[in-house]
Amino acid sequence: MPSKQTASTKNSTNKKTQQLYIGIDGGGSKCKAVIMDENNQVLGTGISGPGNPLHGFEQATNSITESALLALTDADLSNVNLTELIAGVGLAGVNLPVLFEQMSNWQHPFKQMFLATDLLIACLGAHQGADGAVMITGTGSCGFSYVDQKSLIIGAHGFPHGDKASGAWFGLQAAKQVLLSLDGLVAQTNMTTKLLTLTNCQDDVALVENIANKPATFYAKFANLVFDAAEEGDEVAKEIIAEGCAYITNVATKLWQQKPARMSMIGGLTTRLVDWLPTEISSKLSTPLSPPEVGAILFAKQQLVHYKSEKIAV
Amino acid sequence: MPSKQTASTKNSTNKKTQQLYIGIDGGGSKCKAVIMDENNQVLGTGISGPGNPLHGFEQATNSITESALLALTDADLSNVNLTELIAGVGLAGVNLPVLFEQMSNWQHPFKQMFLATDLLIACLGAHQGADGAVMITGTGSCGFSYVDQKSLIIGAHGFPHGDKASGAWFGLQAAKQVLLSLDGLVAQTNMTTKLLTLTNCQDDVALVENIANKPATFYAKFANLVFDAAEEGDEVAKEIIAEGCAYITNVATKLWQQKPARMSMIGGLTTRLVDWLPTEISSKLSTPLSPPEVGAILFAKQQLVHYKSEKIAV
Repeated sequence: MPSKQTASTKNSTNKKTQQLYIGIDGGGSKCKAVIMDENNQVLGTGISGPGNPLHGFEQATNSITESALLALTDADLSNVNLTELIAGVGLAGVNLPVLFEQMSNWQHPFKQMFLATDLLIACLGAHQGADGAVMITGTGSCGFSYVDQKSLIIGAHGFPHGDKASGAWFGLQAAKQVLLSLDGLVAQTNMTTKLLTLTNCQDDVALVENIANKPATFYAKFANLVFDAAEEGDEVAKEIIAEGCAYITNVATKLWQQKPARMSMIGGLTTRLVDWLPTEISSKLSTPLSPPEVGAILFAKQQLVHYKSEKIAV
Repeated sequence: MPSKQTASTKNSTNKKTQQLYIGIDGGGSKCKAVIMDENNQVLGTGISGPGNPLHGFEQATNSITESALLALTDADLSNVNLTELIAGVGLAGVNLPVLFEQMSNWQHPFKQMFLATDLLIACLGAHQGADGAVMITGTGSCGFSYVDQKSLIIGAHGFPHGDKASGAWFGLQAAKQVLLSLDGLVAQTNMTTKLLTLTNCQDDVALVENIANKPATFYAKFANLVFDAAEEGDEVAKEIIAEGCAYITNVATKLWQQKPARMSMIGGLTTRLVDWLPTEISSKLSTPLSPPEVGAILFAKQQLVHYKSEKIAV
């Protein structure tokens, strides 16, 4: 066995002596890659553009390849070919059969590729490869559990029809409420001033011009002002947060029914949201152990064991 | 004075003896034109594609011209040139200064063109040129009053951040509720079956594929099922309608504060909505007298009087 390689001794000395792994987390705004060795030591990381096949196969596959190459460079392993790497790739959207098939048929550059949803790799990452559950609240939202090889997805439906309690949802609630207040239909609150300042708008006409036809990522930028306003005592902001937290409580309750050993909350809105959750929910949350891209490698390694044992069985 | 021309005697006999007017209602999905004579007699109508400059100047101006030419043909007045017509043009979006300026600078084909918002021509149409108020609930929603040359707009903010109680809003509420029910977070109701049937979907994954990234016009098609379900006793559908009606009640109350002589409710959702409104709101609604495109001509004639009196004054 080669000795454990540390981040400070990044080099390609023993690159031929052990198998290297690449983990990919392909999301709607960026694609993250990590290179690890057989002992799960991180050797390098890379970040490229959108890696979600929902927004285009070519862009997704280009981003995956680019992030992998960047991770190799970061690891001082530029002389290693992608064909030498075993890849675990977690992508949003591949829960849809058509996208799973399209990505599976990709003439990928790796030695082997194991494909999973972004949710599964996030869950495996959070629990270091063990069974568990995650609630994800970033731009979008969803709940996911993986117990005894059975997965349950709650939400992950997208914006504006789903993704309740996500950053985009909080931002949209703020925009709706502020527009009603500018029409004089409800009282103006802290959120009104905050949103007009943030968007540099004077009135509802300017605000509508600013927010019309914008995607979830745009609205997600307004999420923090709801929490800022609530912390200053804004009752309307508190009501919005209460509605979001009631939804998350429902999701968590449903996930616990699957009897996961651990549950983590991840995503960009977690730190703002967690303090507003009921104690019976927040107190049972565990710190995520690794990020999704590491989860992708853990997935690949698990599949590889399965794959090898199947080969032996045959 | 020429005798009053009836629809059954459409011809161009006296086309040179009196001024003809064209009224345009340019909306997001279609552009409606009507030709009238000096005595407000309808001579012909035409319908073309989207006439809303929010979705493109060239398309809007092409649609306006096309609908006008179709109306001339319909009136058996193909030998009349657009340059002979005085036009009243009401367009969504021209409440935004940048679009008003762009449309005003259009090298239009008419003898004269008077430009107004779609809201003002709808209001003038509903009240036959007199002051009044309208609540519009179609794909979008808004309230508008025009009293003593002062206008008030409530809403008209667009989807999904505004347009509460509109067709798109009702449809989105249905989609949200059905997705929650398919996740088992709330009980399934009549709406669940109705929406899955309407979209020909088996489950939430198929439904999300069906509704993702769709515009307001798409969601508006789901509005009727909320009312159908409510009429069958669906409590959740009733709650959605109650929330929409509470909003419309607020808008109506604010509009009545402007002291309009009459208030009408117009738009495709009116017949479904009006029965669910509180009696104190619905009983005070008046039947609209003419459609918006006729209101556009009434607007042009009013402006013309103003214009001529200004000329005399100078």
